[in-house]
Amino acid sequence: MTTLTEIAANRSFGGWHKRFRHQSAVLGCEMVFAVYLPPAAERGPVPVLWWLSGLTCTDENFMQKAGAHRVAAELGIAIICPDTSPRGSDYPGEHDSYDFGSGAGFYVNATAAPWSASYRMYDYVTQELPALVAEHLPVSQCQSISGHSMGGHGALVCALRAPEHYTSVSAFAPITNPTQCAWGQKALAGYLGDDPGSWNAWDSCELIRGGAKVAGILVDQGDADNFLHDGQLRPEALAAVCEAQGIPLTLRMQPGYDHSYFFIASFIEDHLRYHASFLCP
Amino acid sequence: MTTLTEIAANRSFGGWHKRFRHQSAVLGCEMVFAVYLPPAAERGPVPVLWWLSGLTCTDENFMQKAGAHRVAAELGIAIICPDTSPRGSDYPGEHDSYDFGSGAGFYVNATAAPWSASYRMYDYVTQELPALVAEHLPVSQCQSISGHSMGGHGALVCALRAPEHYTSVSAFAPITNPTQCAWGQKALAGYLGDDPGSWNAWDSCELIRGGAKVAGILVDQGDADNFLHDGQLRPEALAAVCEAQGIPLTLRMQPGYDHSYFFIASFIEDHLRYHASFLCP
Repeated sequence: MTTLTEIAANRSFGGWHKRFRHQSAVLGCEMVFAVYLPPAAERGPVPVLWWLSGLTCTDENFMQKAGAHRVAAELGIAIICPDTSPRGSDYPGEHDSYDFGSGAGFYVNATAAPWSASYRMYDYVTQELPALVAEHLPVSQCQSISGHSMGGHGALVCALRAPEHYTSVSAFAPITNPTQCAWGQKALAGYLGDDPGSWNAWDSCELIRGGAKVAGILVDQGDADNFLHDGQLRPEALAAVCEAQGIPLTLRMQPGYDHSYFFIASFIEDHLRYHASFLCP
Repeated sequence: MTTLTEIAANRSFGGWHKRFRHQSAVLGCEMVFAVYLPPAAERGPVPVLWWLSGLTCTDENFMQKAGAHRVAAELGIAIICPDTSPRGSDYPGEHDSYDFGSGAGFYVNATAAPWSASYRMYDYVTQELPALVAEHLPVSQCQSISGHSMGGHGALVCALRAPEHYTSVSAFAPITNPTQCAWGQKALAGYLGDDPGSWNAWDSCELIRGGAKVAGILVDQGDADNFLHDGQLRPEALAAVCEAQGIPLTLRMQPGYDHSYFFIASFIEDHLRYHASFLCP
C-alpha cells in the first residue's frame, strides 16, 4: 500500500481542499497533488474531474484561482490537480526556462536522455496517480479530464490516447497542435529527440488525424489571448481535423478574454456542468 | 487632475479586472490598486464594495482567490482592492516581519517616527483613493466596505470612524480588538507610540464602546481558524460591545473553516448580496 501524506486541509464550500505528498515510482521523486472533495464525498465515492495545469503551475493555481469549488460542491464532483512536472531532479538546464523542464512536463513520456529517467507525466497522470487516488480517496471510476494551455494539450492527449479512462474531455486555450508551434517543438524535441515523426503521438491534431476518437470535445478560447495570436494554440487546426474526422467539437471563441485565470474562472462553471452531464447521469 | 496608469486589464465574467498605478500624495510613493468593473459599469456609474486585505497581501490576492467577480457581475457592483501598506520607503526593519511595516499598514495614520511620514493608510483608503477613483472610474458614491483579518479590522475602523462614507460594513475573521492582541499591540505601538490611550481610536471594540455607530455589522469567522485560537481576532469582544451598545451584529461562526481564502471564497457571495441590499435598493 502506497503512503499518502496529507500536508494541508481547508474547508471549502462545505467540502475539503486537501494537498497530499507521496513518493512516485513512475517519476522517481516525491510529488504533491491537490484534491477538492465535495460534501457528497462524505457519503460515498464521487466522480472525478482531473485538471491539468499549464506552464509554471503547480497543484495550487487552479485550486486557488479558478473558483471551481462552488459548482463542484453543488454537483458532487471531486477535482484532482496534479503538479506539472517531476520535482526531484536537477538535470542541466531543468530549471532555466519557463517552457521546458520543471513546471513544463507537457504530459508526455520522455524518451530522450536525461529526461526519460523521470519525465513520464503521461504515465503518472493516467496510471499511477489514478491508482493511488482510488486506493486512498472516496472517488469512483467515473472520471473526466480538463486543463489549461499546456494542460489543455495534456487533457486532450490523455483523452485521445486513453479514452477508456475518461467519460468526457474539455480544455481552456489548449496547445492543440504542439508539433506546429514553438512551445511544442521545443518541448517535444527536448523530451523525445529530434525525429518529428515521434512527436505525433503527443499531438492532439495528429492523434485525431491518425484515427483516435472521443465522443466530443468542449474548448473555450479567448480571442484576446496573446498566445493565440502568437500561434501557440492553433484552435483552427483542431477544428479542421475534428471536422474532417467527424469528432464533435464545441469551440467557443470568447470575445475579449485573455490567457489568464480570470478567463478560466469566467467559464469553469460551464465546463463542470458539461462534465457532470456525463459523470453524473 | 491626478494621473492613473493602467498596468493590467483582464476580461472577467463579462466585466473587467484592471490594475492601476498612481502617485499617492498621502503616502508619498507610487501605489497600485485593483478594480473589478461589472458589465453594468459600461452603462453608467455603479456602486462600490471596498475590500481591504490582510497581512502580506497586495491588491492581487482577493481579486485572484476570492471568486467574487461572478456575483459582483450579477449584482452590478464594482470591487476595489487597495494595497496593504505604502511601498516606496525603506525604513529600518520595514521589510523584516510579516506583521509590521510593508504589507502590514493596519489602515491607521501613523504618528510615530519614521512611520508617520508615509504610513497613513486610513487617509489613503478613506480619502485619497476614493477621490481618485471618483475622478477616473464609473463608480457612484454609494459605497460599502469589507475585508479580511487585518483588513477586516480596517473595514470596521473605516466604517466606524467615517460612517458617512459607507452604506454597510462586513468582515471575514477581523482583528476586532487590536489593543488586546499580539498583532495589534505590535502594530499600534510601532505606528502610534507607546501610549495605549492613543491606540483606542483604531480599535473597533473601543470605538464602539466610545459611542461610534453603524447600522449593522456582518462578520464571518471560521471556528478552526488558528488565529482565533491564538487570541488575535476576539469576535467575542466585538459581540459583547455590540450587545452593550445596541449595534446589530450578525456573527456567523463557520464550523471547520480556517483563515484562508478558501474560507473567504465560500462565503463572499453572502457578503456581496448583503452589501447589495444596501447599495442597490
